[in-house]
Amino acid sequence: MLYRYLPVTRWAAAYNRDSLAADTIAAVIVTIMLIPQSLAYALLAGLPPEIGLYASIAPLVIYAVFGTSMTLAVGPVAVASLMTASAIGELTARGTPEYLGAAIALALISGLVLVAMGIARLGFLANFLSHPVISGFVTASALIIAVGQLKHILGYDIHGHNLIEQVTSLVSGIGGTNFWTIIFGSGVVAFLMWTRQSLAPVLKRLGLSKHLAGSLSKAAPVLAVVVTTVAVWAFDLQGAGVSVVGDIPRGLPTPALPAFDAALWSTLFVPALLIGVVGYVETISVAQTLAAKRRQRIDPDQELVALGASNVGSAMFGGFPVTGGFSRSVVNFDAGAQTPAAGAFTAVGIALATVFLTPLLFFLPKATLAATIIVAVLSLVDLGAITRTFAYSKSDFTAMVGTILGTLLLGVEIGIAVGVLSSLVLFLARTSRPHSAIVGRVPGTEHYRNVDRHEVETTPQILSLRVDESLYFPNARFLEDTINDAVSKNPEIRDVVLMCSAVNFIDASALESLEQIDHRLQDAGLKLHLSEVKGPVQDRLQKTDFFKHLSGNLFLSQFEADQELRCSTNRDPVRTS
Amino acid sequence: MLYRYLPVTRWAAAYNRDSLAADTIAAVIVTIMLIPQSLAYALLAGLPPEIGLYASIAPLVIYAVFGTSMTLAVGPVAVASLMTASAIGELTARGTPEYLGAAIALALISGLVLVAMGIARLGFLANFLSHPVISGFVTASALIIAVGQLKHILGYDIHGHNLIEQVTSLVSGIGGTNFWTIIFGSGVVAFLMWTRQSLAPVLKRLGLSKHLAGSLSKAAPVLAVVVTTVAVWAFDLQGAGVSVVGDIPRGLPTPALPAFDAALWSTLFVPALLIGVVGYVETISVAQTLAAKRRQRIDPDQELVALGASNVGSAMFGGFPVTGGFSRSVVNFDAGAQTPAAGAFTAVGIALATVFLTPLLFFLPKATLAATIIVAVLSLVDLGAITRTFAYSKSDFTAMVGTILGTLLLGVEIGIAVGVLSSLVLFLARTSRPHSAIVGRVPGTEHYRNVDRHEVETTPQILSLRVDESLYFPNARFLEDTINDAVSKNPEIRDVVLMCSAVNFIDASALESLEQIDHRLQDAGLKLHLSEVKGPVQDRLQKTDFFKHLSGNLFLSQFEADQELRCSTNRDPVRTS
Repeated sequence: MLYRYLPVTRWAAAYNRDSLAADTIAAVIVTIMLIPQSLAYALLAGLPPEIGLYASIAPLVIYAVFGTSMTLAVGPVAVASLMTASAIGELTARGTPEYLGAAIALALISGLVLVAMGIARLGFLANFLSHPVISGFVTASALIIAVGQLKHILGYDIHGHNLIEQVTSLVSGIGGTNFWTIIFGSGVVAFLMWTRQSLAPVLKRLGLSKHLAGSLSKAAPVLAVVVTTVAVWAFDLQGAGVSVVGDIPRGLPTPALPAFDAALWSTLFVPALLIGVVGYVETISVAQTLAAKRRQRIDPDQELVALGASNVGSAMFGGFPVTGGFSRSVVNFDAGAQTPAAGAFTAVGIALATVFLTPLLFFLPKATLAATIIVAVLSLVDLGAITRTFAYSKSDFTAMVGTILGTLLLGVEIGIAVGVLSSLVLFLARTSRPHSAIVGRVPGTEHYRNVDRHEVETTPQILSLRVDESLYFPNARFLEDTINDAVSKNPEIRDVVLMCSAVNFIDASALESLEQIDHRLQDAGLKLHLSEVKGPVQDRLQKTDFFKHLSGNLFLSQFEADQELRCSTNRDPVRTS
Repeated sequence: MLYRYLPVTRWAAAYNRDSLAADTIAAVIVTIMLIPQSLAYALLAGLPPEIGLYASIAPLVIYAVFGTSMTLAVGPVAVASLMTASAIGELTARGTPEYLGAAIALALISGLVLVAMGIARLGFLANFLSHPVISGFVTASALIIAVGQLKHILGYDIHGHNLIEQVTSLVSGIGGTNFWTIIFGSGVVAFLMWTRQSLAPVLKRLGLSKHLAGSLSKAAPVLAVVVTTVAVWAFDLQGAGVSVVGDIPRGLPTPALPAFDAALWSTLFVPALLIGVVGYVETISVAQTLAAKRRQRIDPDQELVALGASNVGSAMFGGFPVTGGFSRSVVNFDAGAQTPAAGAFTAVGIALATVFLTPLLFFLPKATLAATIIVAVLSLVDLGAITRTFAYSKSDFTAMVGTILGTLLLGVEIGIAVGVLSSLVLFLARTSRPHSAIVGRVPGTEHYRNVDRHEVETTPQILSLRVDESLYFPNARFLEDTINDAVSKNPEIRDVVLMCSAVNFIDASALESLEQIDHRLQDAGLKLHLSEVKGPVQDRLQKTDFFKHLSGNLFLSQFEADQELRCSTNRDPVRTS
């Protein structure tokens, strides 16, 4: 139990001086990267900047205790921050204590839901966010975030809950653009874009190792923060209309549990669930990618518990919803982190920054933070995925486009609901109409193939049907329809052989359907036979009296069924093409 | 179009004197049987008795136009009547015009929903009511109905929305039992029980044909109605406390559309949907059973339209929700009905009865109707199905017991919701964890089987994995987990071969997962190969650049993969058992 629910016990005993050194170096690099990111995502969620820092302390320590990934770094991320802003933006006004309280409650509820799902081992439910839905959702969210952040770069306010309203507000307010703000904003965007593309190669040419060059280039936002902050302070640009972060309270938050508010909690439940599940999907895929590189294992259900506990911890220390972040985890991994202790050390670094560095951030322009957000989220936009999905699968494409349009036009929650529901309905529709084929013998062999695709021999009195799916309730009626149709179309048929080579499972509904089919065929003077039934399926059927009542026989192979039914009735095969 | 949406056009042209004679005889028999049934189910739904007759006129005519079954008979049935009473019983008091109005609105909404589902070809959604859920639901409903009807047999009122409340009320009021009422009630129950068991054999021994004997014995309730009505009239038992049906308005209802009431309609939407879908499931299974006996076809999507239109028609003529009934359809079939015209003729019969017979029903004891309901529904209780399901499949059993307990303790709507959700969750859980096996070569053959079940040869450096399911989003992550686990447990592995013989489909999510798996294996210095990929799956993969990036190769057969990977690396197989 201890071993399963407290993975820290698996690695802490073997912790040594080497791990300590590696984890400390990684923690320093991640801390430097996390400071501007934490501030930026708090801004995106509509929260005071220090809340971003608070959300980067407790969750990291808690993840170190409960997490099964050696290198995952949790904290505020772009999509969860947008979802937070969207969930509480309609309840109350930004900047009020109620707004902050709702954000904290959201983290708590989301955390409790994830922990409960983890204990109930419901991690598989996250699978029902299919990749095209997630990809569409992230792309649409990134566009909404980027457009929303333009206000900080242009220096005037942009309203709107969906993309159309935002773009309208953006265009109509264009005259309010602030000169110095746009200089900083667009300058930082350009600089960061360049560093993403070109800084690492430049550093490598200067002789740095590939890993170090990559990590250092990820710290470029810190350089932007320092330079723009100093510029605003030195040239007194706050007076020229450049909006700055301002006073950040020094010191650490005191732990407290948010008061229970039944009305608020029930309003926040669905958004909290969505934030939790979306965050979990991101977490698990990052964790799995990194674990596989070192042939390590993660436990998906325990990750639910760990991410949930991290969110509860975030709420207790005044933070908002957190997730395992992609870029910070990669930096942590590349910087050589060995164990989750690196996360705990990062938490110490952020805590020190919260206590000592915050006064230095007074003159940090909001435009700089907005620029880091824009550059970060634009890398999430994957338009290629849309065309690739279109080429590959129309039903996946339908779900993806539904998600994108839903998210852009109706908001993040409806968007993701549209995606999940449409992919589930498409999935259920497919499952309920599995592929089936009438088969005939490939001449001269014991092999049976689809009559529509191959030149095969069939006997008019024998219908041989292969269903390429397990038989269970979603397709039980399909089987009845298929056999009814085939039999009513061909009055010559006297024997129906169901070839079960692809049937891995028959549930109670399908068993009843088979009995029904058999009864109906008997009533019409026909017989139902089964062939190539797999061992486990047959074992299960033996527990019932199915074979006692079956009008026909059970044949080991389709060939055997065909031979015997032909011989016993003196029928000749005909060749179809 | 006409041919598809108006199936009447398919059979009306060929209608002749023989069909007319056959349909007329069937209509007379079904009419006689339907009169007491219609009155009884109106009583069960808490409605005035004439509403049951109204619901047996228009729907039959409309089904004759739109239905694809030649012998189905629609009208009020027990389960839909109970669901009607349950849906509107909490909104308003029985006997009020609002109660009746709500029942009519319920039929209308339910009809519109079914028509919409039919046009959208969503018939497959009904499959998600699995057989064990339906069976459990019908059994629990029948128990609730039977206990609820005891009040008419005992002669005192029984309250309660669930079984516990009803039984408590039943026991506490036992002193209020009325002597003559219980004599009639239990007498009719005993008589009907006996006729079900023994009347048909007795009639057959008297020289009647099997069909006629069966049909006549189904008309036993009519005899009970006549005898008890005459007895109450002759001995003036109404004065002794026997509750009678009383005045039934003569004449036919005038067609009218219920007024639109947004608040009422939105309250009734979910119950209407459930009544519609449950009714559809009953309809389709009856229709399919009867059609198959004559090798006829029904169109499940058109049946949605037909049943929906029948319900709209029922509402327009002041009726309540209707369904294709099992017993009346069987009687219709056995009595020799050839086309849906038999249903239209039955409607004429019921209309005549409504005009001319209703005065004769004044002294009909409610106890007699209650007794016919009890005997009818008790035949629906299938306790054997519970034990059979337990023996066959634990997950089906779980869904079934959830449905029964939910229905008995929390009401019909919650009961069916519990059933559908639990079977869907269990289904999704199973789909997301498909069966997979590590395989090895059966010595001396080219055949590969599960290493856990067979004595096979494997090579420690090669992992051969067979997944017995198509690869799509519910199990995409499962595949990643499975391969990650296997690879991290066996450090010797250098090649992973995915044997795709059971993979009928790979969706976009699974394709991305395969790419991820391949990337991760490459990062760890391994190769991913595929073998036995089916033609259509390979065609689809060729549209992408999957094979360009794949670290390993595509092999026609598992044997070929194994041979080549062994030769190229000089590895020796070992035998496992």
